[in-house]
Amino acid sequence: MPSFGGSFKSYKLPGGPSSSSSLTHGIHVFNCPDQVGIVAKLSECIASRGGNILGADIFVPEKKNVFYSRNEFLFDPVKWPREQMDEDFLNLSKLFSATRSVVRVPDLDPKFKIGILASKQDHCLVDLLHRWQEGRLPVEITCVISNHERGPNTHVIRFLERNNIPYHYLNTTKENKREGEILELVLDTDFLVLARYMQILSGNFLRTYGKDVINIHHGLLPSFKGGNPSKQAFDAGVKLIGATSHFVTEELDSGPIIEQMVERVSHRDNLESFVQKSENLERQCLAKAMRSYCELRVLPYEENRTVVF
Amino acid sequence: MPSFGGSFKSYKLPGGPSSSSSLTHGIHVFNCPDQVGIVAKLSECIASRGGNILGADIFVPEKKNVFYSRNEFLFDPVKWPREQMDEDFLNLSKLFSATRSVVRVPDLDPKFKIGILASKQDHCLVDLLHRWQEGRLPVEITCVISNHERGPNTHVIRFLERNNIPYHYLNTTKENKREGEILELVLDTDFLVLARYMQILSGNFLRTYGKDVINIHHGLLPSFKGGNPSKQAFDAGVKLIGATSHFVTEELDSGPIIEQMVERVSHRDNLESFVQKSENLERQCLAKAMRSYCELRVLPYEENRTVVF
Amino acid sequence: MPSFGGSFKSYKLPGGPSSSSSLTHGIHVFNCPDQVGIVAKLSECIASRGGNILGADIFVPEKKNVFYSRNEFLFDPVKWPREQMDEDFLNLSKLFSATRSVVRVPDLDPKFKIGILASKQDHCLVDLLHRWQEGRLPVEITCVISNHERGPNTHVIRFLERNNIPYHYLNTTKENKREGEILELVLDTDFLVLARYMQILSGNFLRTYGKDVINIHHGLLPSFKGGNPSKQAFDAGVKLIGATSHFVTEELDSGPIIEQMVERVSHRDNLESFVQKSENLERQCLAKAMRSYCELRVLPYEENRTVVF
Amino acid sequence: MPSFGGSFKSYKLPGGPSSSSSLTHGIHVFNCPDQVGIVAKLSECIASRGGNILGADIFVPEKKNVFYSRNEFLFDPVKWPREQMDEDFLNLSKLFSATRSVVRVPDLDPKFKIGILASKQDHCLVDLLHRWQEGRLPVEITCVISNHERGPNTHVIRFLERNNIPYHYLNTTKENKREGEILELVLDTDFLVLARYMQILSGNFLRTYGKDVINIHHGLLPSFKGGNPSKQAFDAGVKLIGATSHFVTEELDSGPIIEQMVERVSHRDNLESFVQKSENLERQCLAKAMRSYCELRVLPYEENRTVVF
Repeated sequence: MPSFGGSFKSYKLPGGPSSSSSLTHGIHVFNCPDQVGIVAKLSECIASRGGNILGADIFVPEKKNVFYSRNEFLFDPVKWPREQMDEDFLNLSKLFSATRSVVRVPDLDPKFKIGILASKQDHCLVDLLHRWQEGRLPVEITCVISNHERGPNTHVIRFLERNNIPYHYLNTTKENKREGEILELVLDTDFLVLARYMQILSGNFLRTYGKDVINIHHGLLPSFKGGNPSKQAFDAGVKLIGATSHFVTEELDSGPIIEQMVERVSHRDNLESFVQKSENLERQCLAKAMRSYCELRVLPYEENRTVVF
Repeated sequence: MPSFGGSFKSYKLPGGPSSSSSLTHGIHVFNCPDQVGIVAKLSECIASRGGNILGADIFVPEKKNVFYSRNEFLFDPVKWPREQMDEDFLNLSKLFSATRSVVRVPDLDPKFKIGILASKQDHCLVDLLHRWQEGRLPVEITCVISNHERGPNTHVIRFLERNNIPYHYLNTTKENKREGEILELVLDTDFLVLARYMQILSGNFLRTYGKDVINIHHGLLPSFKGGNPSKQAFDAGVKLIGATSHFVTEELDSGPIIEQMVERVSHRDNLESFVQKSENLERQCLAKAMRSYCELRVLPYEENRTVVF
Repeated sequence: MPSFGGSFKSYKLPGGPSSSSSLTHGIHVFNCPDQVGIVAKLSECIASRGGNILGADIFVPEKKNVFYSRNEFLFDPVKWPREQMDEDFLNLSKLFSATRSVVRVPDLDPKFKIGILASKQDHCLVDLLHRWQEGRLPVEITCVISNHERGPNTHVIRFLERNNIPYHYLNTTKENKREGEILELVLDTDFLVLARYMQILSGNFLRTYGKDVINIHHGLLPSFKGGNPSKQAFDAGVKLIGATSHFVTEELDSGPIIEQMVERVSHRDNLESFVQKSENLERQCLAKAMRSYCELRVLPYEENRTVVF
Repeated sequence: MPSFGGSFKSYKLPGGPSSSSSLTHGIHVFNCPDQVGIVAKLSECIASRGGNILGADIFVPEKKNVFYSRNEFLFDPVKWPREQMDEDFLNLSKLFSATRSVVRVPDLDPKFKIGILASKQDHCLVDLLHRWQEGRLPVEITCVISNHERGPNTHVIRFLERNNIPYHYLNTTKENKREGEILELVLDTDFLVLARYMQILSGNFLRTYGKDVINIHHGLLPSFKGGNPSKQAFDAGVKLIGATSHFVTEELDSGPIIEQMVERVSHRDNLESFVQKSENLERQCLAKAMRSYCELRVLPYEENRTVVF
């Protein structure tokens, strides 16, 4: 399984914040073996720096010796410089031998850099671009890659040009997935988004990239894995169709699920309207998952599950 | 696939209605090869007897030569006696060589007689009994059969006694499913309800019974077929769990789906709360399916699907 | 109350269709005083021209002497020319002294021409433009009018330029709503859409325009009428917020409701997130209402209600 | 506004727990003026007694100087006796001058004692009794009071007899609400449930009772206050109907909202089906609210709102 938000590492601003003086928001996500007193130490650390906890989610699964938490706090970057914050949490991370300790200060840290991979169907890509343009998606789009010559239509490509978002067409084949070139293009990204990318990424690619890859599947996983889930659902005569956003793992459509959504269908729906309704779900489901991810709400959880605070 | 509502046949009241004189509701469901003019003939038939259509659903799937309709109409049983109505629709049925033509006059026709089969878990059985007692389930319960010694608990059995609903305990085994005895007990029913009956009915049983059998499955079919769907869903880390009510066919959990419902789950849910939420869905989903069925809203549809008007 | 789809009148193509020969879809919506035999005559009319009914919705409210229907049928424009179809339904319309009889053949008839009015908030406008560009909104946008100098932001205006959609800025004031100028600009439209237009249209405007005006309200009408419904909802401590799309009448936020949608909120939501969630609902709710309207699914109904087939 | 869960006070078991030795669940709810370090102290207190936090919700509304938290923890009643626990939290309560500090150990503390008030409609009462019998409602029903001679029907009364739940019929009138008698009957309860009780309780009653009163309203408050909300909603032509469970205050239907639920309605629904769908929502909404309340998830919040963790 990918390293989930290894992408979050090294978010320091070189002194920038110290110039600021107003209070700002901080988020801290923590995951370590459970023991008595973790919450006490975490909150004491924040309090000792004059930070004030606004909200906290803590989760310790039954009969498992593991601890998850997400804290939102208000602090003064002058009294608690960004570097200091990293150091403080790093110490706690060592103290509890944490498997994950991520800090983020949205107002000070750079936006997440993402790469978007698409194929022929561009409805998810278009939706992401629109949300991005409307400022509803707090990311920086490093590049858009398509492996289908009839990929994004012209007005999308022009949109990318106008907004100086590099667009790359890499004609992939079963023999040559051109993963090397893709890796180079997304080297600098924090995570990847497969906006209906119809090509399976190899375990080698995932390991080399080493960060998270989020996919949108147009079916209610674990049912309808693989190709043409809408057709599969239609043939099964289901009364509810869905979409699933999940992390990509080597096994096709089997990575940890982040978000799922459903909509009613009836006998009046044909395959076409199944696809239409599904596309509408895909747009919302992928955007919701990305948003949760960027807000550090999504953590990996044992046995191929996720914690979504 | 079972004969779907073969159960509806022969609903005549021996002259009873003719004594009545006020207007009453009628329902007619029709299924035949498609051709021009069916709606015209159906509505003309109703109009010619002074019947007034209150609502109609008509469905002709694309590129299929098949016609489905459901009419609700107001009529005067004196001017249009129940027997005459059957005869009129029978003629239309012949005219269009219908595969199905069902008439029902809720105020005049007897309630559907059902048999309920249950095992150890009695939450669906209890819910049905409560709805029945509150008059929210328009059926007559012929009998309740359980194949599990630790089946319905005592207050349920007492409830059945108080309400003169025969209760039968038939200890079934893989070797002896005692289907012969069950058949005798439900011979007189219009359809069967499997309220979490944990025993697979043989194709032989289904063919001999010859009427519809409705099952509730505690999973979002077609995923999670077979045993312990809640556990399957939990292990899959889904974010939505569901329940499915479907017609029973020889193939396990693969009959035409009537109704599906979902509820959100999160990492905070454990297997126990999965089961709890699922049970809540099962109750509602089964009741909704039975209600639709009794209102003649459910028709069989090609390729293992249903039309639910 | 406005004339509901007076806009549908006179949809004929001058002979164009007769050249075509393949089968195509037709929609007929009918509303008249109820009597025995309407369905028979309607369906007979369609059948007599070789038309084949694919789906029908019929509705006769209890104890009201009124009839509503919507038919979808497949027909051959050569055998049943568009003009003939208008004439045939016109005759039925006279026969039953219909208050409404609308025919539409999507493949032959021109798209609906709409005018969009907006103010400062442009999220609904932007969403409509995006859907329009993606071909998910079957309309032709005649013009966009804003009454707020800080109306649509520049990338929206450029979008309009690129797509040759006239944009007009009319600075309205309480004293001068400039309704005369607006009327001239939208004279040729089939209906108007208020995409968060923060100015009340006068009864005089509505009467003169004479066609339908669809508004999106960011509250669950009839609660939260008037200004700042999100604030009202927030102060009321509701656990569900909503959006309502409705027809505009003289009385503020009181016209017939077409569509409503809701989303959960909790104590964690602040006014800002209330607004954000609400905006998301507004987008979907308005688009859904417009779609239903364009598919002739929306009919006016007594006592300020709607029939939405 | 009532004292919200004043009912929770003094839940000690006289030594009983100390005999136990296995680990058990504890819940602590806290509400005080906000300051730095509260979480640290709370978690340190639990940790110092060997308690292990399983889950925590913390909420500090923006720009308000107030702190809310709910902790679930696992502890050993031998190492941390119930009385000690009360004392420990009482000290923290003093330290932070808490407006609320409630402890509950479900396995050791007695069930909440409730009184149910009903009138003519008994669907909510019946549903509560059924859930109670099925063990889905963790309360002890002290008594059922009806103010309507045609109140609960006979099978309900017999149910109460069989289960030794006192039933009282108090014929109330505008002149004599018999609140004194009601008070005596519910003196010993922890909170009251108005299961469609059609009589307004006086401010005097609420003050004297001094504990929480939960009501179910068959409308989407704040709309449709007062009588016949279903009729109000029907006349308004809404497309969504709802139910609202809220705390009772002196002002009719204006107390803090705990839970709201909705369901779609269409033109096909008549007033009768509005009522039917509404009743179904009322059952679920009231049960959900009571459940949240008993799990100490519901806290009073400024400006007539609630925090529902």
